[in-house]
Formats: sequence, C-alpha cells, structure tokens
Amino acid sequence: MSQKLHKAATPELSDVKLTGGLFGKVYDNTREHVIPYMWDILNDSDDIKAASMFVETDKKGEEEYPSHCIANFKIAAGEEKGNFYGMVFQDSDLAKWLEAVSYMLAAKRDPELEAKADWAIDLVEKAQEEDGYLDTYFTLNAPDKKFTDLMECHELYVTGHMMEAAVAYYEATGKRKLLDVMLRMAKLIDSKLGPADQGKMPGYPGHEEIELALVKMYRATGEEWLLNLAKFFIDERGQEPKYFVEELERNKNSYFSKYNPPYGMYSFGQEYAQYHLPVREQKEFLGHAVRCMYLAEGMIDVARETGDTGLLDAVKDLFHNMIERKMYVTGGIGSSADGERFTGDYDLPNNTVYAETCASVGLVFFMQKMLELEQNSVYADVMERALYNTCLASTSLDGKNYFYVNPLEVNPAIIKQNPDLRHVKPVRPQWFGCACCPPNLARMIASLGKDIYCVNGDKVFVHLYAANEASLKVNGQDVKISMETNYPYELSVRITPSAGKYTVALRIPDWSRGCYEIKVAGDKIDAKLVNGYAMIDRDWNGSDVIEITFDDKVKRVYANPNVISDIGKVAIQYGPVVYCLEEVDNGSNLHSLFLTGDNTFTKTWKADKLGGIVELKA
Amino acid sequence: MSQKLHKAATPELSDVKLTGGLFGKVYDNTREHVIPYMWDILNDSDDIKAASMFVETDKKGEEEYPSHCIANFKIAAGEEKGNFYGMVFQDSDLAKWLEAVSYMLAAKRDPELEAKADWAIDLVEKAQEEDGYLDTYFTLNAPDKKFTDLMECHELYVTGHMMEAAVAYYEATGKRKLLDVMLRMAKLIDSKLGPADQGKMPGYPGHEEIELALVKMYRATGEEWLLNLAKFFIDERGQEPKYFVEELERNKNSYFSKYNPPYGMYSFGQEYAQYHLPVREQKEFLGHAVRCMYLAEGMIDVARETGDTGLLDAVKDLFHNMIERKMYVTGGIGSSADGERFTGDYDLPNNTVYAETCASVGLVFFMQKMLELEQNSVYADVMERALYNTCLASTSLDGKNYFYVNPLEVNPAIIKQNPDLRHVKPVRPQWFGCACCPPNLARMIASLGKDIYCVNGDKVFVHLYAANEASLKVNGQDVKISMETNYPYELSVRITPSAGKYTVALRIPDWSRGCYEIKVAGDKIDAKLVNGYAMIDRDWNGSDVIEITFDDKVKRVYANPNVISDIGKVAIQYGPVVYCLEEVDNGSNLHSLFLTGDNTFTKTWKADKLGGIVELKA
Repeated sequence: MSQKLHKAATPELSDVKLTGGLFGKVYDNTREHVIPYMWDILNDSDDIKAASMFVETDKKGEEEYPSHCIANFKIAAGEEKGNFYGMVFQDSDLAKWLEAVSYMLAAKRDPELEAKADWAIDLVEKAQEEDGYLDTYFTLNAPDKKFTDLMECHELYVTGHMMEAAVAYYEATGKRKLLDVMLRMAKLIDSKLGPADQGKMPGYPGHEEIELALVKMYRATGEEWLLNLAKFFIDERGQEPKYFVEELERNKNSYFSKYNPPYGMYSFGQEYAQYHLPVREQKEFLGHAVRCMYLAEGMIDVARETGDTGLLDAVKDLFHNMIERKMYVTGGIGSSADGERFTGDYDLPNNTVYAETCASVGLVFFMQKMLELEQNSVYADVMERALYNTCLASTSLDGKNYFYVNPLEVNPAIIKQNPDLRHVKPVRPQWFGCACCPPNLARMIASLGKDIYCVNGDKVFVHLYAANEASLKVNGQDVKISMETNYPYELSVRITPSAGKYTVALRIPDWSRGCYEIKVAGDKIDAKLVNGYAMIDRDWNGSDVIEITFDDKVKRVYANPNVISDIGKVAIQYGPVVYCLEEVDNGSNLHSLFLTGDNTFTKTWKADKLGGIVELKA
Repeated sequence: MSQKLHKAATPELSDVKLTGGLFGKVYDNTREHVIPYMWDILNDSDDIKAASMFVETDKKGEEEYPSHCIANFKIAAGEEKGNFYGMVFQDSDLAKWLEAVSYMLAAKRDPELEAKADWAIDLVEKAQEEDGYLDTYFTLNAPDKKFTDLMECHELYVTGHMMEAAVAYYEATGKRKLLDVMLRMAKLIDSKLGPADQGKMPGYPGHEEIELALVKMYRATGEEWLLNLAKFFIDERGQEPKYFVEELERNKNSYFSKYNPPYGMYSFGQEYAQYHLPVREQKEFLGHAVRCMYLAEGMIDVARETGDTGLLDAVKDLFHNMIERKMYVTGGIGSSADGERFTGDYDLPNNTVYAETCASVGLVFFMQKMLELEQNSVYADVMERALYNTCLASTSLDGKNYFYVNPLEVNPAIIKQNPDLRHVKPVRPQWFGCACCPPNLARMIASLGKDIYCVNGDKVFVHLYAANEASLKVNGQDVKISMETNYPYELSVRITPSAGKYTVALRIPDWSRGCYEIKVAGDKIDAKLVNGYAMIDRDWNGSDVIEITFDDKVKRVYANPNVISDIGKVAIQYGPVVYCLEEVDNGSNLHSLFLTGDNTFTKTWKADKLGGIVELKA
C-alpha cells in the first residue's frame, strides 16, 4: 500500500473542556439527563412504560415497547425468555448509546455510568454466539439466514456501530472486552465475506457503516486485515456482477423478500444503496442519505490509511455536487421520504423534504473527517450549518424529544390530511419505533469537543466557535487555548492562546466573509486568509487576547435560482443560525408574510425564551 | 316516498348535432378514430400487440397485454382457455366503451359499430353465470370469494358501469339483451345485499358507482326495487356498525387481505371510501376523488327520485366546500396520489397533485346532474373549467394518448429522480395497466351533446357554448337552436332560435361576469341575470340572431390566499382556458419567469399549432 495521507491531529475529548454557552449547555444536558433517559428507554424501565410515551411506531396492535433493545440482548444471552422485538437493526441503538457514553467517559470518568456500560458490555458478550456471531435479530429470529440478506438486514451496519462503540470504549477506559467481542465478529465476517477468488462471498453491506468502523478497529489494534476488509467493501460496491442482484435472485422465494420483506429495499433501486456504480465512478450522492454519508466517511478512512488520493477525490466530487445542488439551507439532506433519499439536482422541496436527523449527523462526522485531511473552511461551514440548523434543532431543549424528519415548511392542518406528508410531524415525538436518530445525536453531541480544533504542524485550526478550554500539542509544545463567547447568539469571540510560537488559524464563516474584524491585544490586524482561515502567526505571550467580531447583520439567504421550490422565497439567517417563523409568534398564515426590499431587522436577546435566543423582528 | 324532484329536460343526443369547433372536432375524432382504437386495445389486436405501446403498468415480468379485457370475457364464456389478467375491475373498460358506443349510436346509428357492440354484448351474456353473476375476475380467479371483499374488489363498481352501458345501449338501439343481463345481476345482488333485517348482508360498494347506475336501471325499467337498492347503498354507507370494519375482520386471514391484497385499500382509512360517516353527515369530500364524484351523483339521483331534498342539500354542501377549498384552477380534484384522494382545505400542491382524469370526468357528470335540478351557472362554470382544462387537456390531439394524472407543475428532470412524483408523467402514455381514464373520457365526449342545454318550462338554458344545431321541445313546441362559434378560441357566439315565444337563458361564465355584451337582431340588450343566466324572454321570429360577446381580456387568476402552494403565483386564463407554459416555447427555467404588474398580453390565432389555438405572449 502507498503511504497514508497526512492528517491533522484532533485533540482528545479530555483535552477540550466546554465551558458554558450553547455547546456546553447541550453537552451537559446530554451527559446529565439524556444519556440516563436513553438508558431507561433501552431497558424499557418501569418509568418509561408508565409514561406511555408518544412513540412513533408502525407496530400497532402488538404489545408495544419503546425499545426492547436490552431485552433482545437478554433473550439472546439466555437470561430471559421472549421474542425479538424491533427493527432488524435494533441492536445499534445500544451500540450508539455505548459510543456516546464512551465519549463522555473519555472526557471525564464516571464510575456509575461506567458500571452501566460494563454491565451492558457483559450482556453483549453473553449474547455473542460461539463462533463470534453477534446480532440479536438473527440469533433470535432467523439463525439459518445469517449473511443471506445483506441488502436489507443490516447485519454489517449493526456490527459497524458496535465496533465504533468498542473502539470508543477501549480508548476511553482501556477496557478491551467489547473490542475483543467485535474482533471475533469481525473475524467471522472476514471468513465469510471477501474476494470470490478466496472462496468467500463477495458481499458488502446494504447500509454502509462497517467500512468506517473497520478502519477504527484497525487503528485501535493495528491489525491490517481489518483495513483490508474495509477496502474490499468499498472497492467491491457496485462492481459487476452485482452482488445484490444475485442475492435478490437467491432470496426471491425466501421469507425475507417474498411474504414479509423487512423493508422491501430491493425495490428502491440500486442507487438507493449506492451499488449502481463502483463508488469511484459515482459523481453525485443518490439514494438513502444516511448511507451516502457513511459511505463517504468509509471512503475517506480507507483513502487516508491507504494513501488513495483518487478515492479521496471521488469523495470531494460527491461533496461538491451535494453542497451545490442537493443540500438545504439548514444543512438538511435527502429530499424525499420515499427511500429517505437524495433526489435530483436542485430538487429541494420545503414541505415533502425528509432531511433526516441521522443524515445531518453523518454529514457532521463526514465534515470532521475532511477537515482532518484538508483544512478548508468550506467543510467547517457545512458542518456548522448542519450542526445548528438540523442536528441541534432536531431535539427539544431538554434533549428528550426528537424530530426524525426536519422539514422547512410545516402546516399542521395540511400534514394531518395529506398522506404525502405523513412523515412530517408538527411536534417532536419522544421516541421512535425506528430509533436511529436520538442515540446518533447523542454520540455526536458527546464528541463535539473533537469538532472545534485540529492541529496541523505549527498551526491550530479553529473550526467552530464555542466557549471552551483546550490543551493541545503543537509541534511538541503544550499549548492551551481559552475561548470565551456566547456564539451563536453573540457573534464575537475572545481567544487567549498560551505562550509560544505558533499560528492560530481562525475560520471565517461563509456568512461573515469580507465583513469581520480581528484584534490582537487590542490592535486590529489584517490576517492573511488561507482556504477560509485567517492565519495569525505569532509568538504568543500568553496574555494577548484575540478578539474576533463577525458580521452581525441579519442576512437574507436566497437559494440557487434553479431551485424551483424556492422561487420568491428567502431564508433569514443570523450568524450560523437559520431562523424559523412560527405561528405562535407571527399568527396564522405564515405563508402570506413577505419581506419588502427595505425591511430591516431588530435583534433582541431574550434570555427567557427557549433557554435564551436572539429574537428577530422585521 | 315523497314526490320526485322537478328536473329540467335534457335533449336526446340525436337532437344536438355538433357542427365543428373544438367540441365537434373532438367528438368526430372520438367516433371515427378513438372508439375503433379502443376496440383494438380491448381485443389486444395484432396491430396493438405489434405497436409495443408505451403502456403504464406495474405488471413487469409477466406477459404483458395492453388490455386482455375481451380475452377475460372469452375465457369466462368458455370460448378460450387462459387466465384472468388485469385489474379486478378490468371488465369496466369494456363497459365504458359500450356506453360510449351507445351514445354515439344514439346520435347516429352505425351498423358496423353496432355489430361490434352486439358481438361484445353476446360475449358478456355468455360470460354471465347461471345465477346471474357477472364479473370475470371472480368467475375466473376466485369463484368462492364473490361478495366477500366489497371494499377492495370492485364487483359493484364493475356492475354499475355495465348497467350504465346496458341502459345506454337499450336507449340508443332498443335492444334489451344487456339490460336483461344486468337485471339478472342486479337481482342477484339484491338477493345478497340489503337490510340486515331482511336476512341480507348490509354491504355497500367500496367504490361507488352502482348507486347511480341502479337509478338509471330504475328509470329505464320502472322497477322500484332497483331504486330501493340504490337508496339502501346510499343510506347504509358509514352507518354503525360499519360493514367494512366487519368485512375486514372476516377477511383478515384470507387471500384478499393478507398475502396478496389487491390494493391494500383498507389501510387507506375509512375516509378513503367515504364510510367514515353516514353520507348525510359528511361535510367535505374526503378520500378517493373519483369515488366522491360517483357518490355525489348517486346521492343526487336518489334524492331526485325520492324527493329527498335533505340528501340534495348534503351534496350541495360537499360541492361548495370542494369548489371553495379543494379544486384546482383547472377543475382538477384530488391533491394526493396516495389514495388518489382529496386532502385538507386549501391543500393544493402543484407538483405532487393527482387530479385524475376520471375524477374530473366524474365532476362533469356531477355538474350535469346538478344543472338538471337547478339551473345555476356555478355548476356550469365548474363543468366548463374541468371539461376544457383537465378532461380535454388530458388527451393528445389524436385522442390516443392520455394523462391519468394532470399536474399543474412538471419538471421532467425532477420527476425522474424524486419518487414522490413518480405518478407524474412528462408525456401522455398510450394506455395504462389501470385503464379507467381513457374509456371514461370517451363516454364523456360521446355524451357532450347532453351538456350544452337543458329545458325547464318555457326556458332554454344554454350551459356551454359550442357550434351545434339542436332540436328541443319547449312547452310542447318544437324549437330549433342554431349556434355558431369558434369558442373557446373566439369568445363570441351567434345563436339563432327558431320562431316561438320562449326564454333563451344564456350562461354568463364566471370569467366574463360584469363584462359582456348581448345583442338581439343587432340591438344591444340588457338582459336580466338570474342565477348567472342572462334571460332573454321574447317571441322569436326565427331569423333574429343573438350575438354574445364575452370578455376577451387575458385574465390573471389568483388562488385563495390560504393556498400555500400558490403564494406569489398566478394562472393565466383566456376565456375558459387556463394556459400552460412549456419549455418548448419559453426555454428552460420556466419557474423563473414572472409577470410584472404592467405586463400586457398579445393574442394570436395559430391555425397550424396544436390543431389551432390562441397563443398568448407577455
């Protein structure tokens, strides 16, 4: 293999302490309230059962559980009697929770939380079959069907999430148990799937995820066969003869695809799962948006470890096509609920849109990985857009209610009667039959500390602005960065770098380009802009403060004129936040409101509204 | 029963001769080309098979037939071997064709065409089972399931259409064979379905249609049990305990609803088939739009024959709710493809819209029936709007290509990639797997002559404007009306009434209200407007000409401001015709075109374009 691609260093989570502000508030709430709340749900605790929650599920008529996730593991482990309940990928809810917990523990050990995780990991180990197989859906429901329906049954997806949890837990605690469990499962998969000329089935996941997870496992263990398997999955995808075409043929008369297909995914077409073409030949994201994001991450990871710049270029093409033609102003992606998918260029309907929370969470991870390889502010701009306007906006203030779908236009009366909008909810549900999004969001929030900085040589790149104290290694020196700000409510930031000679590279957000001011030690400076970062190269004295003031005008954002749905429409943005007009503030007939050319906005800080927001009036 | 409601007289089809113009052209083309073309399709003629038509069907992988309709009858009649193919209501395609043929024959006998119809009727009779049962789907596919799935299996719907054909053929030719066939089927139905206290099953059709057809049969035969059965179906619909709730319970484990439900219609909800409430309590059309139209017709028919003004008032409430909140500017109805249904108030999306051709055909019939009971121009306005802008616009000039769905906004690139728009076609297909619309349109066009006039006492009401010569009975006198016009391309009409003392009541279309001129014998007159009709009461001398000039300004039509999808949008209408902007004339980016406040339009008659149209430029 060629040389690995150079990567900037991302700080450990223990080295970036969020100190208040929006990020700090969300993070603390997630640690203190959301993680325990999700644990109760995963365990179907009595409190949760008693709450008769507003759960989105299609399983009417059966006994309903908010989750049954831990119960599935207990039954598979032989500790309880019962049947599997939930989605084929129900196990991944626990995996994502464990990953989120790991990030919390990485930042700050917590014996009580760790004990819960240890207990869960013991249970997972007990649910593992003797040959290493781990997936409670198949263990309990269809033990003779393992690895026969890779397209629809999410085995490799579930495995990938549990691998991510395993690596994160190992890195946070040094405990190897889950890592070893997942190494055994990986070995089993490696013995079954791989190049046909090695006598294996040339299959790959219907839902990408394991590729990036295998690379994490490889980095944690140094075992190269893990990387090779990831590379195989990436390279084989979409090659002729197509594995899924043959798999469907084999399954035509089976339980899975005839009488009770889990989801009928074959019928969504090859683009749905990105196997219409080899991945290097794909020029636009098509199909299921979350799959696309995880595929992109896997491609970056494999490219990075194998030095495959061609593969990285393919990802960049996909990225640019997306941001120019297929992304909402909110960083939402996926224009159609049918297949939760990307559609064609400039097709960005505001009401029928899907914009799944998980897709934007995936986009944040994708951007984080791009920033490690290439410090270009376009990636951080997109990350910030998705982070504030879809990911964080998808949850309630208490973090316990969630939008799965994040529309740009909702009329409660209309969505109630038009089945084309049945995926759109007027209020955030408490949980979902398909609960992929809430724990996905938790692991993103728990790892926010990794999104703010990266260090490349003697340069500290600041991608996001949030109050924090960070300890970084810059060219071997210990550097501390202290950041004070009430961003995104106040668009000014004070940064105090510790003493030493290095560059602080400040991202100038796209919405502030050409209109910002930087002072160092009170003096306005004119810093060179490189790839969207203002480079401040200096021998810092440890007390000098950088003061950045961004453009604080309220912006009117217009879509590309090719976007039919946005003709005559304008979005209102202040800082990175795209605003929402609601009837509670504006009366009914929101659609009749318009801005004249000379409307000006007033901004008011409302400390008591939604936990503190900047209210706009026009 | 109370007295029948008074009804205006509608002329016989033989008494209204279309003499050129758009109606004449469409009518002649339908008689000369479309009716024979459909006959070839129903017979899967060699020409049709060779043409490898662009047929919309989901039945991929099987041997494909454009229709197989006649073949189903042949197999059921024992004349051929084979299997049933097609929709459960495939028989209705022949029924509608026979009805269209009957109207053609009523206007002008044609031995060759009549011979085909006679042959088909002989075949239908042979396909009838001994007990009177007639429905090839059940005869061939599920003889033990008759009348067990009224919700989904369209038996009563198919029967209704064949009854309409039977009455029409009997009235056109005096031949009773099909009428007798359908009387036997009606007897069988009457022996099975009806009041529970008579030991019958209290079922009613999942798809309304038989109600109005039973009333036609009653009028043709005078047999009151037919009317009573229609009334039962209307009255029983939506009563508790709900028949379909119990039927679904009985069918839960049957072929129909578990492993291979024909369409899964139960899952669309009770509103889908209008059994959520008793019909008199329904205040808005909900669910499948075609069903709503046929239900309304059935309600009018039963109200008329039984003198039930309360039932008629219920229809009027539904009508007004629809035209104020649920109808497109094109007279299209049904906002969602999911269930082909009406949605909520003011929910009129332009791209995801369904606006099925059959629904607007049903609306034209509905309006025609309202006009017989009440000569109010609002019904004729709606009829005209639907007629020109959805019904006639749905077919190609040659009448052999059809839109099933009639969207108001189509972007071919977007519909190709967004599955939410998969029902929208950029060009008219030649036929459909579900071929309800083409022959429905044919029977509407074949009966256009009934839409133009009605006579009430000494008043001749002119609802529509089209070149024709009509012979009417007015208060016992023979009256002839000659109408010359190139409407809707020229918005002036010359009418010559024959001698006699009677009133000519001219409809003033909604788009011309307050701006029109009427001259009689060259003198401008000021006719009194009653319910939208200009009343010209006169002792006609037989040579005086009425000249009407309507408003010929190009109109900008704005939606009700509650229609979110139409904010900032305007429709362009000239006369009754709503215009369409196409890329071929305007270049791409149609969505970027806008009209300024002072844009004026020029109109040009283009004889060589689309068979002659008025082209507008702004």
